[in-house]
Amino acid sequence: MTVNQTSVSLDDAQRVIAAGQAKATEIESPSNIAVVDAGGNLVAHVRMDGAWIASIDISINKAFTARALDVSTEDLAANAGPGEQFYGIHASNAGRIMIFTGGVPLRHNGQVVGAVGVSGGTGEQDKTVAEAAVAAL
Amino acid sequence: MTVNQTSVSLDDAQRVIAAGQAKATEIESPSNIAVVDAGGNLVAHVRMDGAWIASIDISINKAFTARALDVSTEDLAANAGPGEQFYGIHASNAGRIMIFTGGVPLRHNGQVVGAVGVSGGTGEQDKTVAEAAVAAL
Amino acid sequence: MTVNQTSVSLDDAQRVIAAGQAKATEIESPSNIAVVDAGGNLVAHVRMDGAWIASIDISINKAFTARALDVSTEDLAANAGPGEQFYGIHASNAGRIMIFTGGVPLRHNGQVVGAVGVSGGTGEQDKTVAEAAVAAL
Amino acid sequence: MTVNQTSVSLDDAQRVIAAGQAKATEIESPSNIAVVDAGGNLVAHVRMDGAWIASIDISINKAFTARALDVSTEDLAANAGPGEQFYGIHASNAGRIMIFTGGVPLRHNGQVVGAVGVSGGTGEQDKTVAEAAVAAL
Repeated sequence: MTVNQTSVSLDDAQRVIAAGQAKATEIESPSNIAVVDAGGNLVAHVRMDGAWIASIDISINKAFTARALDVSTEDLAANAGPGEQFYGIHASNAGRIMIFTGGVPLRHNGQVVGAVGVSGGTGEQDKTVAEAAVAAL
Repeated sequence: MTVNQTSVSLDDAQRVIAAGQAKATEIESPSNIAVVDAGGNLVAHVRMDGAWIASIDISINKAFTARALDVSTEDLAANAGPGEQFYGIHASNAGRIMIFTGGVPLRHNGQVVGAVGVSGGTGEQDKTVAEAAVAAL
Repeated sequence: MTVNQTSVSLDDAQRVIAAGQAKATEIESPSNIAVVDAGGNLVAHVRMDGAWIASIDISINKAFTARALDVSTEDLAANAGPGEQFYGIHASNAGRIMIFTGGVPLRHNGQVVGAVGVSGGTGEQDKTVAEAAVAAL
Repeated sequence: MTVNQTSVSLDDAQRVIAAGQAKATEIESPSNIAVVDAGGNLVAHVRMDGAWIASIDISINKAFTARALDVSTEDLAANAGPGEQFYGIHASNAGRIMIFTGGVPLRHNGQVVGAVGVSGGTGEQDKTVAEAAVAAL
């Protein structure tokens, strides 16, 4: 009766992070990059030299959010602003829900197996880095 | 001089949750469903297979909110957005106040005896599940 | 390269909780009983009528602890007192580590697939309930 | 009048972590390993496959503690038990002070430039991994 859940390994997480890091270097956006597993728990994190301190927490929680709701934080953002159906969700989960761009689910055979979170630049930069990261899974 | 408080029992809570669960299955919206008692304290919770992890906290706190303010979180939402009279209330109570649809008070003989909170889908889906749950009290 | 993780389903969790509940009724120790999955996230919880309010949090966190460290909280307790090697661990994880009896890992084919947490009576009573719960997996 | 602070880079942190990881593999103690910089802020973290979920927080906070007090958590432990001069310190810093073995300052030319935190096994195992990690700076 138990459930089978596929999840990222540390090797997966480090490969994903390395790809994000390469892209962040290329676009000159020093970033924090984090990967969580299928349970929403941190697998690996890096803060590139010069990246913001506040982005440690933000990157980890963008990854948490993307797995905890199986959605990119960019798509969540569209539903989480004033007047939208999920407005106020950022106050839940003890402040761990991030409602701006940079968190993206990691999928394997159609199943969410974890997520990546990037924080370090503009929304556009974080998205670019996250997409490069995800592509390396 | 003492106060008599009627409150849901565990049997009530489980009946309410089972009804919500049946509706959630019917509309294909895997949900977290929680019931709190008259004291706002959790009586029972279920996370259906495949339901979001973030919704554990959200369902419990939608139920808390609906009892703690004796209002549906949908009605609260109408008063909690920017410019409204309760704007900012989601930051109170250590982040336990949820201001979007899915939390509904449970009433018995006109008295609030607890509340149900549902989180798992769109606002519309959560409302549908919560209403089916409440009807089973 | 991904990892396969078996985890309890909601059906599993409810069967485990029902068995614990039956034992708690038998020994007259109204309890909170919680089950978490392989990711440490709550799957289901019940508070029996008359059970302590503080035990909501304690039962959930005993279950979390038993999965988060793959150990019974009773065995952890033996290493977490003054002078022991893990003394102070109760301050970690934002206060979610419970270091007294009542949290037990759920195993399937030798793998930890979740955990149960019981709080409601003496350590001995909680242990008795937890063992009955675990046996039902 | 300004202060110059030498601190670990991400390269340093990853080299330190890799050395710890190799030792953890050798002694078969799957670990969480974290490195913080001179500011006490996380630079990098890995959770090896099979390592405890609770140890994510513990490893990061052992590293924080070792830098925040410029002491190994093993030495701190000797002063933080009941009756000792720093008893109760584990309740400070919002629960971030870890008072058991596994956190060690990273020094360069006699100055603390960060710290490593290891959590995953017994105190003895965590210490062995941390010492291997520190030696790689």
